[in-house]
Amino acid sequence: MNFNKGLVIVLSGFSGAGKGTIMKHLLDKHKDAYHLSISATTRDKRTGEKEGRDYFFKTKEQFECLIEDGEFLEYANFNGNYYGTPKSYVDSLVEEGKDVILEIEINGALQVKKIYPDALLLFVTPPDAKQLKERLVGRGTETKEVIEQRLDLAYQQSFLMDQYDYLVVNDDLDECVERVHETIQNEKFRIHRNLNNIEIMKKELEVFSKGDN
Amino acid sequence: MNFNKGLVIVLSGFSGAGKGTIMKHLLDKHKDAYHLSISATTRDKRTGEKEGRDYFFKTKEQFECLIEDGEFLEYANFNGNYYGTPKSYVDSLVEEGKDVILEIEINGALQVKKIYPDALLLFVTPPDAKQLKERLVGRGTETKEVIEQRLDLAYQQSFLMDQYDYLVVNDDLDECVERVHETIQNEKFRIHRNLNNIEIMKKELEVFSKGDN
Repeated sequence: MNFNKGLVIVLSGFSGAGKGTIMKHLLDKHKDAYHLSISATTRDKRTGEKEGRDYFFKTKEQFECLIEDGEFLEYANFNGNYYGTPKSYVDSLVEEGKDVILEIEINGALQVKKIYPDALLLFVTPPDAKQLKERLVGRGTETKEVIEQRLDLAYQQSFLMDQYDYLVVNDDLDECVERVHETIQNEKFRIHRNLNNIEIMKKELEVFSKGDN
Repeated sequence: MNFNKGLVIVLSGFSGAGKGTIMKHLLDKHKDAYHLSISATTRDKRTGEKEGRDYFFKTKEQFECLIEDGEFLEYANFNGNYYGTPKSYVDSLVEEGKDVILEIEINGALQVKKIYPDALLLFVTPPDAKQLKERLVGRGTETKEVIEQRLDLAYQQSFLMDQYDYLVVNDDLDECVERVHETIQNEKFRIHRNLNNIEIMKKELEVFSKGDN
């Protein structure tokens, strides 16, 4: 059987839950296991950034053409700049049997699930709402209004959690990173991802059982 | 959040695939994590066997009364003796938050899934049909007829594989045992097993977002 088909993995969740840190540690510890999806953007290239490593840099016109052509798995506009995940790039990695990780916000994640129903959606959250509140409140430097906005956004986002596949509870970072790694690897053995393998086994067993021993 | 709800785990699969060995190693290595479900049986108690540790020993009449009362998750008759899994025993362990493992044959496993739709069904298989054949053929001591019967049974059983949750590929035993352990533990973070946790989080976030900071 072949258990090495590439997976599309989407990591998102509450802001302040530590997605970025989990992602960084996962990619550090399991360099060879995962490929980070590279986004396209219209924002300016910063010093030290490299085309095709940090981002695919596009003009606004190029980006909007790509949107029209349905070339993005998901895209969004932040502060006047577009950011998006090029579908062809992800497709080519998966085709090669590579596991591709996307770190994107929640609406983008649900877009990806529509295009790849087999994508594995991981939702990062602190162990409980109280700890999320503490992380969102931050270091006491934010206004009451900003804090309330953040908490309200988290509340709205909590209604989308049930569309994910797994909760990633970020309590102890190292444990959490290992659990994410195991979850992804074990997911490859889920029955619905192995219907092809099962068909092959059936056919081989049929031949064997017909007495060609 | 509470991720410690007890799971009902069913280990079954092809005969010759090594279920019993995996089970033994899993319970040895992770003694405190899992509880083995104890079967009831009408067969005679053997020397050294203990009521409530090895089996719950019943008379044929007692066993058939229990069947009538719907007290078994599943039962079967082998060589004139009944074997069955008492529902009340499994229920009480799960209630205490314990993960209960049942090692039963495939039809029994599918019965259990009907009663506990949340049960985790693991199907043990060698990596491919050829290796299954080799294990079924055995050490050259079996007749051609017996071997064909075994292969035909495996072929029939392969049609039920897609009703399971995970394949457990028994290639390297130690790896396989660890994968089973991880799979069970990670499964606790699956979204559909955490809808209650999510509801609690929503309610808490709603209170926080209404400005009671």
